[in-house]
Order: sequence, then C-alpha cells, then structure tokens
Amino acid sequence: MSQPLVLVVMGSRSDLPAMEGCMAQLKEMDIPYEVRVLSAHRTPEAVLELSEKAAENGVKVIIAAAGGAAHLAGVIASSTVLPVIGIPMQTSALGGMDSLLSTVQMPAGVPVATVAIGKAGAKNAAILAAQMIGLADPAVQKKVAAFKKAQKESVLAGSRLQEAE
Amino acid sequence: MSQPLVLVVMGSRSDLPAMEGCMAQLKEMDIPYEVRVLSAHRTPEAVLELSEKAAENGVKVIIAAAGGAAHLAGVIASSTVLPVIGIPMQTSALGGMDSLLSTVQMPAGVPVATVAIGKAGAKNAAILAAQMIGLADPAVQKKVAAFKKAQKESVLAGSRLQEAE
Amino acid sequence: MSQPLVLVVMGSRSDLPAMEGCMAQLKEMDIPYEVRVLSAHRTPEAVLELSEKAAENGVKVIIAAAGGAAHLAGVIASSTVLPVIGIPMQTSALGGMDSLLSTVQMPAGVPVATVAIGKAGAKNAAILAAQMIGLADPAVQKKVAAFKKAQKESVLAGSRLQEAE
Amino acid sequence: MSQPLVLVVMGSRSDLPAMEGCMAQLKEMDIPYEVRVLSAHRTPEAVLELSEKAAENGVKVIIAAAGGAAHLAGVIASSTVLPVIGIPMQTSALGGMDSLLSTVQMPAGVPVATVAIGKAGAKNAAILAAQMIGLADPAVQKKVAAFKKAQKESVLAGSRLQEAE
Amino acid sequence: MSQPLVLVVMGSRSDLPAMEGCMAQLKEMDIPYEVRVLSAHRTPEAVLELSEKAAENGVKVIIAAAGGAAHLAGVIASSTVLPVIGIPMQTSALGGMDSLLSTVQMPAGVPVATVAIGKAGAKNAAILAAQMIGLADPAVQKKVAAFKKAQKESVLAGSRLQEAE
Amino acid sequence: MSQPLVLVVMGSRSDLPAMEGCMAQLKEMDIPYEVRVLSAHRTPEAVLELSEKAAENGVKVIIAAAGGAAHLAGVIASSTVLPVIGIPMQTSALGGMDSLLSTVQMPAGVPVATVAIGKAGAKNAAILAAQMIGLADPAVQKKVAAFKKAQKESVLAGSRLQEAE
Amino acid sequence: MSQPLVLVVMGSRSDLPAMEGCMAQLKEMDIPYEVRVLSAHRTPEAVLELSEKAAENGVKVIIAAAGGAAHLAGVIASSTVLPVIGIPMQTSALGGMDSLLSTVQMPAGVPVATVAIGKAGAKNAAILAAQMIGLADPAVQKKVAAFKKAQKESVLAGSRLQEAE
Amino acid sequence: MSQPLVLVVMGSRSDLPAMEGCMAQLKEMDIPYEVRVLSAHRTPEAVLELSEKAAENGVKVIIAAAGGAAHLAGVIASSTVLPVIGIPMQTSALGGMDSLLSTVQMPAGVPVATVAIGKAGAKNAAILAAQMIGLADPAVQKKVAAFKKAQKESVLAGSRLQEAE
Repeated sequence: MSQPLVLVVMGSRSDLPAMEGCMAQLKEMDIPYEVRVLSAHRTPEAVLELSEKAAENGVKVIIAAAGGAAHLAGVIASSTVLPVIGIPMQTSALGGMDSLLSTVQMPAGVPVATVAIGKAGAKNAAILAAQMIGLADPAVQKKVAAFKKAQKESVLAGSRLQEAE
Repeated sequence: MSQPLVLVVMGSRSDLPAMEGCMAQLKEMDIPYEVRVLSAHRTPEAVLELSEKAAENGVKVIIAAAGGAAHLAGVIASSTVLPVIGIPMQTSALGGMDSLLSTVQMPAGVPVATVAIGKAGAKNAAILAAQMIGLADPAVQKKVAAFKKAQKESVLAGSRLQEAE
Repeated sequence: MSQPLVLVVMGSRSDLPAMEGCMAQLKEMDIPYEVRVLSAHRTPEAVLELSEKAAENGVKVIIAAAGGAAHLAGVIASSTVLPVIGIPMQTSALGGMDSLLSTVQMPAGVPVATVAIGKAGAKNAAILAAQMIGLADPAVQKKVAAFKKAQKESVLAGSRLQEAE
Repeated sequence: MSQPLVLVVMGSRSDLPAMEGCMAQLKEMDIPYEVRVLSAHRTPEAVLELSEKAAENGVKVIIAAAGGAAHLAGVIASSTVLPVIGIPMQTSALGGMDSLLSTVQMPAGVPVATVAIGKAGAKNAAILAAQMIGLADPAVQKKVAAFKKAQKESVLAGSRLQEAE
Repeated sequence: MSQPLVLVVMGSRSDLPAMEGCMAQLKEMDIPYEVRVLSAHRTPEAVLELSEKAAENGVKVIIAAAGGAAHLAGVIASSTVLPVIGIPMQTSALGGMDSLLSTVQMPAGVPVATVAIGKAGAKNAAILAAQMIGLADPAVQKKVAAFKKAQKESVLAGSRLQEAE
Repeated sequence: MSQPLVLVVMGSRSDLPAMEGCMAQLKEMDIPYEVRVLSAHRTPEAVLELSEKAAENGVKVIIAAAGGAAHLAGVIASSTVLPVIGIPMQTSALGGMDSLLSTVQMPAGVPVATVAIGKAGAKNAAILAAQMIGLADPAVQKKVAAFKKAQKESVLAGSRLQEAE
Repeated sequence: MSQPLVLVVMGSRSDLPAMEGCMAQLKEMDIPYEVRVLSAHRTPEAVLELSEKAAENGVKVIIAAAGGAAHLAGVIASSTVLPVIGIPMQTSALGGMDSLLSTVQMPAGVPVATVAIGKAGAKNAAILAAQMIGLADPAVQKKVAAFKKAQKESVLAGSRLQEAE
Repeated sequence: MSQPLVLVVMGSRSDLPAMEGCMAQLKEMDIPYEVRVLSAHRTPEAVLELSEKAAENGVKVIIAAAGGAAHLAGVIASSTVLPVIGIPMQTSALGGMDSLLSTVQMPAGVPVATVAIGKAGAKNAAILAAQMIGLADPAVQKKVAAFKKAQKESVLAGSRLQEAE
C-alpha cells in the first residue's frame, strides 16, 4: 500500500466492529490509510507523538474514534495542524451522548470535526476525509462526486415501493 | 477582496453576533470568504443553487450555522462535493441540544463536520476550514501552525496566577 | 387505486417496518395514498420536486418519516403550501430524541406537524391526515368519528380485568 | 368578526405573551378565531365540553398551548374529530422539554400535531392551521402561498451582508 | 372481596406486566382494590366519571399508570379530592423520561404523587397508598411498619457476602 | 398554633423563597405545620431522629424539599411509616433534573411521593398533604374540595379574553 | 485476610455482577477489603453505624455502589472523615443518568468522589482507592505505577492492526 | 508558603470565579497548594509534564477544573499515580452536562474522582483532597473532622425558622 493519507486511530480494539465501515469506505475510494489502536488515557505520550509527526509523515487527515469521556480526538487535535475528525462511539449506558459531548464541545482554538454517533459516523468520517483530501487532489474529489452520484441513483432507483400501489 | 475560499452561510440575521468570531478568525488568517444569510426552510432552492455552484466558483469549504431544527448544513452537504462545517447555534429553550443533534446526526453518506455549540464553534469552524485549505496551500497551513503556537504561548505566559502565592 | 390524497415519504427503506401502521391505517380509512422512499440528503432535488408538485397533483397532505438528523419533513415543508406531518423514527443511539428535535423544532414560518416517535406516531400520522382531509370531505370526517367511537368502545369493553376481582 | 374557524385554547393567562404571535398570524391571514383560557387540570369538563362542541360550532382547527405536564392538547384531541395542534410552552426549569414530551408523545389513536417550543411554535401553529383550512378553502391556501412567497423574498433581499465584504 | 379502598387505573392492557407488583403488594397488605383499564385519551369521559365518583364510592387513593404523554394521573387528579399516585411506565424510545415528565410536572393546584419509572414505582405506589390509608386506619399503618421491619431484616440478614471473606 | 400535622423539612435556608407557597397553602387550609432546615448530608442523625419520632409526635405527613443530589426525602422515607412528599428544587446547572431524578427514582420498598420541580411543586406538596390528611379528617377534605372549586371558578371566570374579540 | 483497608458497600445483591471488577482489582493489588450489602433506604441506621465506625476500624477508603435515586454514597459520606467513592449503577429505564446525578451532584461540604457508570466505574473505584491509600503506603503506590505501566504496554503491544495493512 | 500538597489546575482563567471556593477551603484547612492555568488542548505537553512530575515534587493530590469537552482531568490522570479530582465547570449552552460527562465517564483503568458541577464541586474538591491527604496525615484528618462538626452545628443552630411558628 502507498503512503497513508489518512491515519485512523481508535481508543480500543472493541471499537473495531463499529469502525469497519470507515476503513471499507476509504478502501473503496482508494485512499491509503493506516489504523492504530491507542488510548488518550492509557498511552498519552504515544498519542501525542503520533499526532505531532503525522503531518511530516505525509498524513493529510486524522480520524479518531472513542467512547465515553472521549478525549482521543481532542488530544490529537491539540498537537497537529491537520484537520481531525472525531467519531463518538455508541455506549451502553448513555447511548453515546457522553461520547458526543466529549468530542464536539471543544474549546475555541482547537476544533474537532465531529460526525454522527457510531456506524453512520464511521462511514461519514471516511467520506469527509475524502472531501478534505479532494481539495488538493482532483482525482479524489472526482471519487467523492462519483460516490454521491451513485448514492443518489441508488435511492432514486428504489424510491417507488411495489406495495404502495 | 480576492476570490472567496470559504462560503459562510447562516440561517438568520440573528445568528450574526454569535458568528462574528468566525469571520474575525478567517480575516486574521487572511482567508477570503463570503457571507450569505439563507434559510434551508425559507429559501431551499437558493441554498441548493448556492451549494451546487460553490465548487466551480472556487470555494473550498462551506460553513453553515443554524439553530433549532438546524437543517442548513445538511441541505448544503447534500449538494456539494466540498467539505461542509456545521455550527449549531445556542437556543433559548433547549440550549442548543436541538441544533447540535440536527446538525451532527447525519445519515451515512452525507457528513457534516460539526463543531461546538455557539461562539466556540464559530471560531473553531474558521480554524477547521483553514486546516482543510492548508492541505493544498502550505501558506495557510503555516498560519494554522502559527496560530496554534501563539495560542500555546499565550496560555503558558499566563499559567501562573499571582493570587496563588 | 384512485388519485392519491396522501403522499407518504420515508427517508430509507429501513423505515418501512415502523411505517406499516401508517399505510394500514390509511387503507382502513379508504384514503388513497402513494409511498416514496427519498432522502433529503441523498436526493434533495427529487424531494423538492416532489413536494413542489404535490398540491397540483391533487395531494392534500404529505407525511414524512425520517430518523437522526431528520430533515425530510422540514425540507418538504419548505416547498409546499400543503400541511406536512413529520414522524420521528426511533434510533439506536439516542432513542429518537435526535429525530424528534430535528423534526419539531422548526423555525417560525415553516411548520411541521410532528407526531410521536416511532410506530405510535406512524399510525397517528394517518389519523391526523384523515382529520385534515375531513375538513373538506365529510365522508372522511365520518370515518374519523367512527374510528374514535370504535376505539372508545374497544377500551371500555376491556376495562374490567378478571384478575382484579 | 365572523364565525371562528380556529379555536385557540391556552392553559394559563401567563401563556399570553408567548402566544401573541399565533393570534397575530391568524389575523394577518384573515382567519377568524376565538381565544379561551382553560386548564385541562383545573377545568377538565369545560375543556371536554368545548372540544366536543367545536366541530358542530363551525370550528375547523383547535390550537392548544400549555407548559409542564402539558395535557391540554391531548385532552382536547381525545374528544373531537378535528385536527388539534399542540404548542409546548417554554418552562423555567426544563426549558420546555417537559411540555414537548407531554404534548408530542401521544399514544396510537389520538394524534396531536405538535409544533416547536414557545414563540416559533405559536406562529407556526397559526400557519399550520391555515394550511389545513386551505385544503377546503382555496382563498386561504392562496394566503399561505403568498405568505411563503413574501417570506422567501424577504430572506433573499437580505441575504447579502454589507459587512461581509 | 370487600369494598375497594384503592382504585388502580392503567392506560393500556400492555401495562399489566409492569403493574403486577402493585397489585401483589396491595394484596399482601390486605388492602382491597379494584383494577380498571381506561385511557385518558380514548375514554376521557369514562375516566372523569370514574374519578368523580371514586370518593363517594369509598375509594381512598387512586393509582394511575401510563406511558408516553402520560395524562392519565393528571386527568384523574383534576376531578377528585382524593390523593392520586402516578406511575410513569417505561417506554422503548425514551426509557420513560416522557412518562415521568408528563406525570410529575403538574401545574400548581393539581398535584400527582409521582413514584419511580416502571416496576419499582408500581410496587412503591402500593406502599405509598398504604401509608396514606394508614393515616386513618392504624391496622394498615401497622402493616406498613411490619413491611418496613421485614424489609430491613431481610437486607441485614444478607448483608455479608461469603465471597468477601 | 396547635399540634403540627405536617412537618416541612428543607435542605437549606436558600430553599425558603421557593418553599413559601407551600407554607402559605398549608396556612390557607388551616393545617398546622412545623418547618425545619436540616440536611441529609450535614446532619443525617438529626434527620433520622426527626423522621423516626414524627409519627408518635402526631405528624401525619412529612414534606421534604432539596436540590441537586437530593437525598432528604429518601432518607426521611427510610425511617418513618408516614407518607413522605418530595419537592425537587430547581438548580442552576441542570434546571432541577438532578433534584427530580434523585427524589423520584427510589428503589422498590421506599416510596417518595414526588411533585413538580420548584414553586409549583411546593404549592402542590401542601395540597397533596391536605388530600392525605383529608382521608382521616372530613373537615380537611372539605377544604380541598373548596379549594378545587374556587380554582375552577377562577379559571372559568377569566376564560374569555377581551383581546380575543 | 488482613484488616480491610477498603470497605465496599453496594445497595443491592443485584449490583454484584457489575461490581465484580472492583473486587478483582483490589485483590490484584493485594489491598484487603470487606464487602457489605446495605441499603441507604432500607437500613439507614446500619449504613450510618458502619460509616461512623469505619475510620476507627482501620478502613481507609469507602466505595459505595447504588442505582436509581442513589443515596448510598452520599449517606456514607455524611458520617465519616474518610474519602468516599461513589459508583453509579446502570439502570434499565434511564441508563444510569439517574444514578450518576444522584451520586455526583452533592452539596458543598460533603463530597463524593464519583466514577463512571457501571463496570468501568467499578474497576476504576478500586484503582482510585489504591491511589488514595498509596499516599500513605509507598508499596501500594508502586502497585498503581506498575498497573499503569502494564496497561500502557498492553495497549502499545496491540496498537498495530494486522487488518490495517 | 510551604511545599504544595495540592496542585490545582484550571483550563482557563475564566474558571477562576467558580474556583475561588476551592482555594479558600484549602487555605482554611492550612493545606499548601499551587494554582496553574493550563489547557489540555492548547498546552498538552505542559499538562503532561506537570502531571508526570507532580508526585516527585511532593504533590499528593491534583485537582483539575474544566468545561465543555473537559479533558483536563483525564489527561492529567493519564500520567500520574496520584489521585486526580475533576471539577466539571458550568457551561452556558448545556449547563455543564457536557463537562460532567467528559470528566466522569472515564474508561476502565484511568479514574477521575469527579465532584459536582460548578461552585459546590469546587469547594468539595478541596474537602475531598483533604480527606485523601488525611489518610497519611492525622492533623489534616482532624481538620476534616472539625470542619464536618462545625458544619453540622451550624445547620443545627439554624434549623428552626422563626417564621415557621
């Protein structure tokens, strides 16, 4: 695989099933990526080191997924000039409201581009990363356009229900 | 002013005070932008037309701010290949929880990069836009790095309180 | 089937099980309807086109069901003079609170007649549509009255529990 | 004034300031209405009597506004074939979340067409009532269309900000 | 069975499983009761008639269980001088938060004595009814005291865990 | 004043303004009461001693008002056979949602009769206490009936708005 | 086992499965503990007696787990000079939001050191207790340091996913 | 002042008014402390360096106050063996629910001892720190005991209201 353009970090291996759609979507758009499991709370230095070096390593966008008091995306955002996308994981007690607020309510000066809770957010993080990369790479922007067109046509093709007649 | 790279859309003129920090931050980073007041619900065609033409007009990132059942960012995201940043406005009844959920909980296929509720989100939307534009424009990325450095130094300079002995 | 009086739009085929009670209730009241699966975010122009033409096509009421950042009803309401009923779909992460707030918290000028989250709301949307159509069509209003009477008698018939003696 | 087509009921005189936009909008559209202050909890029989007789008295739509454990719209809906619009009033402790859930989460069989919390909902209730009445009265439907057109033009006229240059 | 002292009303037969602990507890304390399934929204007159006559029929306390926009306890409280206990039923979408707020947030002048959501509340409603009846009937108050004593002893007997040694 | 029938306990002197309507309502109904400021967390033994002795001292109902992690009513309920009414105080951070859940979500076996958050709940606690005492004292029950009748007449007298013509 | 340094109290035997990780973690760190099942609401005197004597019995930290209107930790904190850790149990209706607010929102003067809802909180309570005991006992502090080191190494060892290549 | 035993870190100078009660309480108990303003997001390395060195510098307890996506306490807890107390700051949009969930919902392995939102939490953090330090220092434990005794006596002295007659 070529030099990763997207760095996908998740806070725990248990986030993997919810995150599969993210990697699948990146693959589908031929965007090289690397996946790491690292925790803002258990391995803070490794997270900081990773995010500090990401830009010079050629990474363009960092995607971070975490649940509960989800600090991963925020900690990464604190030490990179790259755009950081945060995916709040669904949680059993509070449904993911804790993950969402911990990810999105960042203070002025340190944005995290937050997407929806759980699987929809995981897929959307990949598309959003492609949209960002597409700003510099017309080939990727074309893939985003093709994806949107295919999605629209698929919905339109199925928009009439047999049983509604 | 040069060709706008960022299109800032807000749902109502009453969002202007909360949004001033967004435009100020863009100005500070020398990123040309255009501001429009348009409503997803009162002027849907104008919103769609604006977002459909944004890319070909040279816009790189669209920022949309709305409150309540905040559909503006989502409607824009539906018809552009550009990354769309959504700012949930604070609301008097529910504090902005309605704006936040309406903005962030987008279905798979149509991401909105959501930032914090209100003024912190407004400023962060500008920084996030700069981070995205910086992927293709090293000069902008340098401004982001300088902003982060200055921010860090300002915090460090004030980190010791007189009154703490 | 005769000319549809009610247009039922749902954001995704996965909403169909929750929506069956809506169509069943319309059928029971002999109100002709048409069902379409269209997404405010994936097919915005198709949604706008559909709602713009609904009135001249003889439609009287539009019912829209969607979940998460549920913009479907609001987008439809933006481009029709007809009353629009919104059904917030239940969601796995937040139970449907996101769908509810995205549907009901519409800005002044563009109402959506919102009913309960999920299946209760789906059935109630059909009854509410019948009540609206009944304003112009006494035969439909009689069906609403008959439905309410039957419902009352059914509750009264079962109001005494054997085991309570 | 002519025979009231809309019956506006509010649970308390203290709801009047939040409700003024409702009556103003009805007036603007020349829809005759009657206002009553009645409480589902303090005067239940009077509420039931009022709603039972509304249809035969020529009323087409009932609008009910209440706060907290807001039962007014639901109690009215229980005893009329007319469509009932519920406006959840904003509350000091919980912002109106209590009013909203008490109004919208109606059981299958008894819909309440719920609009937004507070003043936006009050204005929207009037427009929604007009949309319903417009189903039988083309003159009213034309007024709704004119209202929407004027609203759109007003937004478009102000969509460019001076200060954005 | 003797003259019922407690009238238990539930909004739907589907509430029966959650309510069994209420009836079991009343039985255990030898408090005669009657159970009725009636809906504030489907059979409002029957509910009002029942609550208006309850006091003269010898009922001392009314227990009402309902879910969603739970108006049953409030409607009953509107038309009786007796204390009314409300049990918010658990709901699938919002967990019972809707039922709780609809039951407890009553306006000044019409109290509902609200207990916990679901089964804990169902049992507690019976105990609370016994505490109220005990104010006039020392034999019932003794049963409450005995219940509390037995409960305390049962907890104390099991307070040491084997596995904790 | 005669032997107190109602014991009103509040967790802090700062609860007094919100609680004045409670005492005023008890006074209006000629129900003798005693007020104490005691904290479940600062003076637990005094709270337990007070509630343990309340019944033998002639108290019939205990009203407890507290905010935040509001344990006062629950601790009192743990050590008396009397019915305990809990009033959740409004709080600045969470509006009183914390007080409400801490008061109402009692485990099976130890009910607290919870009323609305803040001032409406304070007044209603007094009326609910009167309804309970009225079970044993017909004179008090008559006062409750008179209160309800006066309240109804007051609402009916003001139900027609001048400005609605 | 030696003299217990940690006293673990849970409100109900049904909390045991969620609490097992707490005891396992204490065992792993060789911290002697004692477990008791006692209820703030069913056995208030026993709870107070236990907490009043804990310090003189050599206990250093008290851990209290409870759900719903979770008063256990607060009642214990009211009558000891020792630090008290509260674990909010997950609940079926509200996910544990009730337990969390009842545990954490303590009034000024009586802190409860609250950890996360459910199993994560149970394990963390044990670690937090070890951190506190470690202030006086360097051997325990070393165990905390070793635990953190092992945890970090375990995350780092697994941070690269095979499937990400 | 002597060697600081407590390190108080706050995320922003704007937290100072809410935090004054924390420092005042530490002063009252003669516990030496140091105050620093540092941001987990703007100065992550400085935060990590501070927390890594705290233990060897003689600090016993770290108190961290932050609002919104409040990561400060969690980031500190990631890199120290000392107990960390988190104070969620009140926020204008969501009241502090965001701060609370971001602080308390920490993953297994990295506890933060969370106290109440805002000023009550600020004071309680100081008392909790004193309770922890008191485990190793009997003089501090005596001060905690004295504080609790004085607090109890002050409540008892004011427990009878003049106006309660």
